[in-house]
Amino acid sequence: MELETPVIVINFKAYEQSFGESCLELARICERVAEEEKVSIAIAPPMTELSYIAKKVALPCFAQHCDAFGFGSHTGFTPVNAIKLSGAKGSLINHSEHRLKLADIEYCITKLREHELISIVCTNNTATTKAAAAIEPSFVAIEPPELIGTGIPVSKAKPEVVKSAVEAVKNISENVKILTGAGITKGEDVRAAIKLGTDGVLLASGVVKAKDPESVLRELASA
Amino acid sequence: MELETPVIVINFKAYEQSFGESCLELARICERVAEEEKVSIAIAPPMTELSYIAKKVALPCFAQHCDAFGFGSHTGFTPVNAIKLSGAKGSLINHSEHRLKLADIEYCITKLREHELISIVCTNNTATTKAAAAIEPSFVAIEPPELIGTGIPVSKAKPEVVKSAVEAVKNISENVKILTGAGITKGEDVRAAIKLGTDGVLLASGVVKAKDPESVLRELASA
Amino acid sequence: MELETPVIVINFKAYEQSFGESCLELARICERVAEEEKVSIAIAPPMTELSYIAKKVALPCFAQHCDAFGFGSHTGFTPVNAIKLSGAKGSLINHSEHRLKLADIEYCITKLREHELISIVCTNNTATTKAAAAIEPSFVAIEPPELIGTGIPVSKAKPEVVKSAVEAVKNISENVKILTGAGITKGEDVRAAIKLGTDGVLLASGVVKAKDPESVLRELASA
Amino acid sequence: MELETPVIVINFKAYEQSFGESCLELARICERVAEEEKVSIAIAPPMTELSYIAKKVALPCFAQHCDAFGFGSHTGFTPVNAIKLSGAKGSLINHSEHRLKLADIEYCITKLREHELISIVCTNNTATTKAAAAIEPSFVAIEPPELIGTGIPVSKAKPEVVKSAVEAVKNISENVKILTGAGITKGEDVRAAIKLGTDGVLLASGVVKAKDPESVLRELASA
Repeated sequence: MELETPVIVINFKAYEQSFGESCLELARICERVAEEEKVSIAIAPPMTELSYIAKKVALPCFAQHCDAFGFGSHTGFTPVNAIKLSGAKGSLINHSEHRLKLADIEYCITKLREHELISIVCTNNTATTKAAAAIEPSFVAIEPPELIGTGIPVSKAKPEVVKSAVEAVKNISENVKILTGAGITKGEDVRAAIKLGTDGVLLASGVVKAKDPESVLRELASA
Repeated sequence: MELETPVIVINFKAYEQSFGESCLELARICERVAEEEKVSIAIAPPMTELSYIAKKVALPCFAQHCDAFGFGSHTGFTPVNAIKLSGAKGSLINHSEHRLKLADIEYCITKLREHELISIVCTNNTATTKAAAAIEPSFVAIEPPELIGTGIPVSKAKPEVVKSAVEAVKNISENVKILTGAGITKGEDVRAAIKLGTDGVLLASGVVKAKDPESVLRELASA
Repeated sequence: MELETPVIVINFKAYEQSFGESCLELARICERVAEEEKVSIAIAPPMTELSYIAKKVALPCFAQHCDAFGFGSHTGFTPVNAIKLSGAKGSLINHSEHRLKLADIEYCITKLREHELISIVCTNNTATTKAAAAIEPSFVAIEPPELIGTGIPVSKAKPEVVKSAVEAVKNISENVKILTGAGITKGEDVRAAIKLGTDGVLLASGVVKAKDPESVLRELASA
Repeated sequence: MELETPVIVINFKAYEQSFGESCLELARICERVAEEEKVSIAIAPPMTELSYIAKKVALPCFAQHCDAFGFGSHTGFTPVNAIKLSGAKGSLINHSEHRLKLADIEYCITKLREHELISIVCTNNTATTKAAAAIEPSFVAIEPPELIGTGIPVSKAKPEVVKSAVEAVKNISENVKILTGAGITKGEDVRAAIKLGTDGVLLASGVVKAKDPESVLRELASA
């Protein structure tokens, strides 16, 4: 399974807007914009909505997280291989709000690969980006935690973080693609990110909590 | 929201059978048996299937777990109030495979109550059962961890654990109902549990991993 | 092992002042004040200083935390029974900065009791205080987290929290003693706490980070 | 701070023998053997004994674990910079019994380096070894978890794991030294490990739980 790049990945997180009826609505907006603007968009709905949303929209769906084990007696957890049965194409791993142990990151990346699922590993600085890249996930997504949710785009505020991370990843593996996130709300932020050598962006509140998510997403996609 | 008692609660856990097509199939079997045998059955599908299954079957659905916070930036987690929007009637809390901090158990019970959702708190012995009962959840579910998945019914192997827990709970609060679990596979185990003063049973592998879940469930329900 | 009450328990936490030379100095100040003012004082030095300090001062020393298992392959953890060998008389459990799972709180309380060690379980509100009391620790220590480190004494700001907790504990068990903490810096706060029915106070920064810990402690002790 | 290599690092873990009087005894045996056999030995006593032991023996002492933050309100935890004040020369990190989040591993390595302390990061396979090496700790210590405590030496049972890890590390950074562990009990295991390109060994039960730790250690040191 491959994700067409450049890609816009929308992390729905766990906002009030991310559940129930408005979750489906938001997913449909993403689907419509992807189609009409001919851009690659992927979405990560909340865990409880994953199977439902994956059946309803023709977009690659991602789990927001998966747990480092196989099927079994794991009440309330989500084994790596379960997300495939739930209709996902892959999983975010190690989001700044859901950090994982190094051994579990390695387990998840390896198992996702075995199941032909896409792994997107979030990292917070150049050192952890290199470490993650050494395990060869499909993507690393660099998000300086101090910028998440601020509206200050990482591609503007810390272009050197993005640049040094892109270089570091390329030195370690040619196969690992790169996203960047944190503070992205406008088309120009996306353009800047891609110009710095990334393969796309990962964003959340900028779209999900927007008054008019569709127009925000169209503006992003136009870039 | 009230759950009709005596009740059979089926925890789907995270078995291979618990996801995708077979999840829906299993949920439909539960629905059919509840209707035809006129017994109260509730189910706890995996997190990723919750919203989908809740829309498909006319049974009370429970989350297998919920996290101790409200809506917000919580990638990969499930806020208490989110499970209502996902169609659940309540949540299991503190399952032996997913133990929670005391402060988080209290938060979840309190918030579930505020949202008129049902809380089922799992406990492992008389002392923790008393502690949980003191927070006044809807149900406590006593499961000696050493019997889970063994096929040795707690109501037979350790009737004194169940009895002492029932008494302890009643001493602390009249409002808290009691389930018991671990090793239950037959109708007579259910009968024994109810005779010991409980309001129902919580079980998992005995049904979910059975070769013929429907006949197992019918036999249980007949009790 | 019993702790003479009313007692002042000083949690050294992990401040810069709490390690190395100044740790011993602080412990000696506590020892001197206890002796000269004829009050019961107990101290909880950082984990790494525990064995050293316990050998150096004639005060009851507590671990700040212990882990819910026995001796074994537990790199970097502190089994309940290890703290006795390290010279401690007991352990704080479930501090607001180190919350534990309910099942682990129960394990630690039970094992500390078996080893004739004193358990002090921290709680954050009336519901969790009742839950903790149901497991019959030596002490519960009620600390509304929003007051910790503020200098606003719980005995003044929230006397009703303390009162309702004292009552709740007494209803559940006659044997459980009660401390209160959060925001205590003066002798009058200690007096107020004891007047509300508690058996002492638990404090940290008010003494440890004071410019002159000795005079602060003397003023507290005079109450 | 540098550690003379080849080095034997003894992790005391949390065995009954690792606390109180026998902890000091064991530390003194290590000190004596290091002196008499003229080998480099470092020890990691339990957290609660660290400050005491570091004052008593003339050997480099390590914390078994440190927590990913600075001084502050962290009851029961051990800030990175605290271990220096407690007399340690560095810390084990991410032991298989105490796995850490990737972001925390990076924090600890970086802070230990800033404080001129030595970091020894444990890893379980080639992929995690590469990831850890990318963050440039002082040492990585490769321990296939399935061999820990078995008496089957990794250098014999899985020489290819050690070899591939050594190569992988060298490709990523020239500065990172390598230990190997798991199942090492004899001098020939140490020799084999060093022949495979490592800078020493990390072991625990083989010495700590031996009937005669001194003779075991002498035999190891003779290699």
